[in-house]
Amino acid sequence: MVEKAKKELNIKDITICDATQQMLAKARREGVETAFDRAANMKACPIGADSACCKHCAMGPCRLNAKDPYGKVGVCGATIDTIQARNFARMVASGAAAHTDHGMAMVDLFREVVNGHIKEYRIKDVNKLVQVAESIGIETEDRSVKEIATDLYKELERTYTQVEGEIPFAKRVPEKTLEVWRKMGIVPRGAMREIMELMHRTHIGVDQHYENITKQSSRTALADGWGGSMVATEISDILFGTPTPIAVDVNMGVLKEDQVNVIVHGHEPNMFESMLVSVNEPSLVQAAKDAGAQGINLVGMCCSGAEMMSRHGVPHAGNFMSTEAILVTGAVDAMCVDIQCIKQGLVSVADCYKTPLITTNTRAHIEGATHIEFDDHEPQKCTDEVVIKAIQRFKNRTAAIEIPDIRNTGIHGFSHEYINYMLGGSFRASYAPLNDNIINGRIRGVAGVVGCTNPRIKQDWAHVELVKELIKKDVLVLQTGCSQISLAKEGFLTPEAAYLAGPGLKEVCETVGMPPVLGLGSCVDNSRILIAASEMVRVGGLGNSIADLPAAGAAPEWMSEKAISIGQYFVASGVYTVFGTTFPIVEETKFHKLLFDGLEQQGLGKWGFSADPYEMARMMVDHIDKKRKALGIDKSRERVLMDMSDRRDIEAA
Amino acid sequence: MVEKAKKELNIKDITICDATQQMLAKARREGVETAFDRAANMKACPIGADSACCKHCAMGPCRLNAKDPYGKVGVCGATIDTIQARNFARMVASGAAAHTDHGMAMVDLFREVVNGHIKEYRIKDVNKLVQVAESIGIETEDRSVKEIATDLYKELERTYTQVEGEIPFAKRVPEKTLEVWRKMGIVPRGAMREIMELMHRTHIGVDQHYENITKQSSRTALADGWGGSMVATEISDILFGTPTPIAVDVNMGVLKEDQVNVIVHGHEPNMFESMLVSVNEPSLVQAAKDAGAQGINLVGMCCSGAEMMSRHGVPHAGNFMSTEAILVTGAVDAMCVDIQCIKQGLVSVADCYKTPLITTNTRAHIEGATHIEFDDHEPQKCTDEVVIKAIQRFKNRTAAIEIPDIRNTGIHGFSHEYINYMLGGSFRASYAPLNDNIINGRIRGVAGVVGCTNPRIKQDWAHVELVKELIKKDVLVLQTGCSQISLAKEGFLTPEAAYLAGPGLKEVCETVGMPPVLGLGSCVDNSRILIAASEMVRVGGLGNSIADLPAAGAAPEWMSEKAISIGQYFVASGVYTVFGTTFPIVEETKFHKLLFDGLEQQGLGKWGFSADPYEMARMMVDHIDKKRKALGIDKSRERVLMDMSDRRDIEAA
Repeated sequence: MVEKAKKELNIKDITICDATQQMLAKARREGVETAFDRAANMKACPIGADSACCKHCAMGPCRLNAKDPYGKVGVCGATIDTIQARNFARMVASGAAAHTDHGMAMVDLFREVVNGHIKEYRIKDVNKLVQVAESIGIETEDRSVKEIATDLYKELERTYTQVEGEIPFAKRVPEKTLEVWRKMGIVPRGAMREIMELMHRTHIGVDQHYENITKQSSRTALADGWGGSMVATEISDILFGTPTPIAVDVNMGVLKEDQVNVIVHGHEPNMFESMLVSVNEPSLVQAAKDAGAQGINLVGMCCSGAEMMSRHGVPHAGNFMSTEAILVTGAVDAMCVDIQCIKQGLVSVADCYKTPLITTNTRAHIEGATHIEFDDHEPQKCTDEVVIKAIQRFKNRTAAIEIPDIRNTGIHGFSHEYINYMLGGSFRASYAPLNDNIINGRIRGVAGVVGCTNPRIKQDWAHVELVKELIKKDVLVLQTGCSQISLAKEGFLTPEAAYLAGPGLKEVCETVGMPPVLGLGSCVDNSRILIAASEMVRVGGLGNSIADLPAAGAAPEWMSEKAISIGQYFVASGVYTVFGTTFPIVEETKFHKLLFDGLEQQGLGKWGFSADPYEMARMMVDHIDKKRKALGIDKSRERVLMDMSDRRDIEAA
Repeated sequence: MVEKAKKELNIKDITICDATQQMLAKARREGVETAFDRAANMKACPIGADSACCKHCAMGPCRLNAKDPYGKVGVCGATIDTIQARNFARMVASGAAAHTDHGMAMVDLFREVVNGHIKEYRIKDVNKLVQVAESIGIETEDRSVKEIATDLYKELERTYTQVEGEIPFAKRVPEKTLEVWRKMGIVPRGAMREIMELMHRTHIGVDQHYENITKQSSRTALADGWGGSMVATEISDILFGTPTPIAVDVNMGVLKEDQVNVIVHGHEPNMFESMLVSVNEPSLVQAAKDAGAQGINLVGMCCSGAEMMSRHGVPHAGNFMSTEAILVTGAVDAMCVDIQCIKQGLVSVADCYKTPLITTNTRAHIEGATHIEFDDHEPQKCTDEVVIKAIQRFKNRTAAIEIPDIRNTGIHGFSHEYINYMLGGSFRASYAPLNDNIINGRIRGVAGVVGCTNPRIKQDWAHVELVKELIKKDVLVLQTGCSQISLAKEGFLTPEAAYLAGPGLKEVCETVGMPPVLGLGSCVDNSRILIAASEMVRVGGLGNSIADLPAAGAAPEWMSEKAISIGQYFVASGVYTVFGTTFPIVEETKFHKLLFDGLEQQGLGKWGFSADPYEMARMMVDHIDKKRKALGIDKSRERVLMDMSDRRDIEAA
């Protein structure tokens, strides 16, 4: 086969992130390849992209024709619906496993802290401990922190291990939502059992009815959202503190040429927390100075970065599609990674700039990277060593350094607890004012805009355009993960951005002093959105189940199986969830119809798809309006908008 | 795209099973399509078949070039080694999940029986209960069956749920083998945790070192072999009885034209056990007679069929590639299925012959089949209804009936306990005589020949040719699953088949009165082979670990992910394991080298591959001879063969 000439990209077409553009230009000058280049030169397999192939056994792999989906079946007789439902299920299984395994690691850490085997971490947020314990019926009055914490970890461990019954946080689900789940038989047992069963059911010759497979996909995804992810969030808050709003700088300009720059990129806060200690260790700071640096500059990327930003104000350098680009600055003295969304391609880019790329987690080695194992029992042993390596690299810097001079300050750290407090005030903390503002129509509805970036779509663009449209239409936007960083880089996470919002949302933002876009943290912190939604139902006036809320979700630039699991748990929780870029299911199939329509008929939410962010916004707003109408609050909005327009007329007069 | 004319098959080329050939000819006359036709007309995706594609995220699916595996990487930067190791790992995860979920169902049943919540089953084999309990250190003296059983189910549940530590049956692993595992960090924790972690680690951006991924694949596979599968076998024996040798008829001729024929096809013995009760229910027998039948004829297929054959002498109609063909007889009045290896294609074939195809398991529905849910708490409710449906179909039979007049009687039911007894006798039950015969060279070594049939290779042919070669070379063959049925149909599971064996093995078979090929049961009963191997090590004289034994394994016609999990647990246990038909990994990669060589260097076994059964036999025998040499017993075999040849010369004189 003749090697085709590699496509050269127009950098302006592949990202709206100025810093990333600048670095991609430098990369090109320096002959460094990134995922953007590889995506341009890798034709996505069209059959795989449609989930129209199956490699679940060695009678295949079988390929069906997406254009004529019922024209043939697999060797075993599997139809397009079986094949797609199984492929989709495996995405859910892997995504849920990722969150669950992370959550389990947090429970392991928590248990060891509670039992006194680990001294380097401690319970930092006792209020949160008590609140979480009470939310699942653990007695807290007149009991010691240790007693409560012991009961809590034992109970939360069940989220993973229990083989029958309902996971603990099912208690937080609105009654009517839970009732639908019970009727369908999808209330999750332990997450590990659900994952195991889903992997079994997708094996050749087991579950071959797309509806039955999808039930187990929902159950497994719910074991992620209300299980693995939620436990990860809650325990991280208990151990490291519940976020409250904090002004933080985002973007590559947070790197400092005259300091030792250490980037932590990954998903587990424990290593990052330890790194924060290490970079402040006087002997290491001195060593950095001895090497000629002004100090040590710690910077986050990706999800653990979002958590550390929210909890401690650690600056954040960018999202998933900027992790290679930032190495091109030449200014990164160490990139220290743990798990998830770590591109293997980082190895070769880091090599070009002699930046040590250090893996730390036993579950995630990378060929060609340096592995320094992180151990919760002596966390600094690893992170100190990373800092030492970074100082060495600083001392021997040879690469041409160019740091984009771009920093975007924004307010991050809106935990659901804080939203409660912010809206209700300290004396009457409650979601009632939010509900009131939705009922009276100032806020049209709530949208979660979350998820990855993906080189198959212009980086950040769909996130930004979608959110712009939504807030313009008075939809309050909650954000997590890479999407939050996309908007932060565009300056939307500031109270000042309220001027971009529609009149109703603008008024609320100005009254409360909040941004129209609230950043809730990492991807596992999507669980905070679930809790907020439950709270909105509990407070009342907006229906009896999450499916009744005037709300919608979106992941406009998703790329990972985790995103599919998240999407499915939002859908199963009752949320209309719209994905962008691509959707891994061919249309015109019964399975597609089930996801995009049938599930809603069963009382859950449903999936939507559009590659166009403006269309996505329209779909979400239509859905919100449909829900407003069903709640009988469509008229109020007309009134309030009329009032506001009247008022503006008066003001203008 | 122009529809290509469908290939017409030469039936003689696709199976050596005469009954299946006869039915495929009938199917052709009647215009019925089977998996053989679909395989001929479905080109296996060449990239998928080499595991050179990755659809683990939506930046892809990416396709690498198997001819130039290091020529490019995936969009994320994943190399061919990462991609292949991840694909392989997911096969292990699904296969292990299948066995584990089945085992967990058996534990659930056992617990409910022990606790008295289920009365329809009981502990049938108290000896086995005591023996299994003692093998993992549960006190049995002066304790009631209920006390022992309660301790046992609690302990065995840990096989699935425990999040740290070693699974209970690790205690059965030879010390030196276990030591290697501990050093490598692959002693399994609970199977569910291993599966979850493996699904996490194969997610985009997590584990990207093929060696580290493979460690977790081994750990997960071991959680299957020494966990999920072994528990399934042991509990099934406790509840339904440990098999002992029994003469049974195999092949399609076990159907009876004048009776109501009920086929059970699947993997869980509980439903089948209940069906055995239902078909003997006097009122149903009477109903069958009233419908004009001579009675009700219960027949098994696939793995639960192999278990019921071994435990109760229920006749067995054929293996995986005969499940569609048997419906073509027109004589099947109901096919009742549960989980695993149930082709979706059965629906349309059953439709053609108006045979009710009934799914019974909550985890495995099939679109177009009738679902009658099986509940362990009232098992006969389901199985009675199936029998009633079968009687109705008998009454209204319209299809032309043609039953191949072929039945092959053989001896099945060689549990590892029985092998022990058989060889040692009741007074000195022991594997010592087997070891002695290996040491003295009469038996060259032991081979496990197991696994599926697959339309990509002539059905049964590779199984039969391989086993023929092995026994000719004095290798004792242990069998399970579809492979056992292949050989049974060729008459190898009889003591008389000893004449096909080499002189040493023949002598042993004749002395003991056993076949040269011992059938151990279903696929999960591969765990019996592990126990037998451990026992051989424990008895002594053949080295200190399973890897030292002159033994090898093979799955010449495999097709399922379960087979890959089984292969990996045999390899990780120390066995040279040779697969046929196809291997899902492109050669010339580091990952391939790790599987086919590196693992052995680390003290485990290794993989082998050949599509040619004669070559497979040669590879296995070479390995056995290598191990004999390492044990210093290569000379003894030369002597014994000389003796025997001398003796023959004398006899001939």
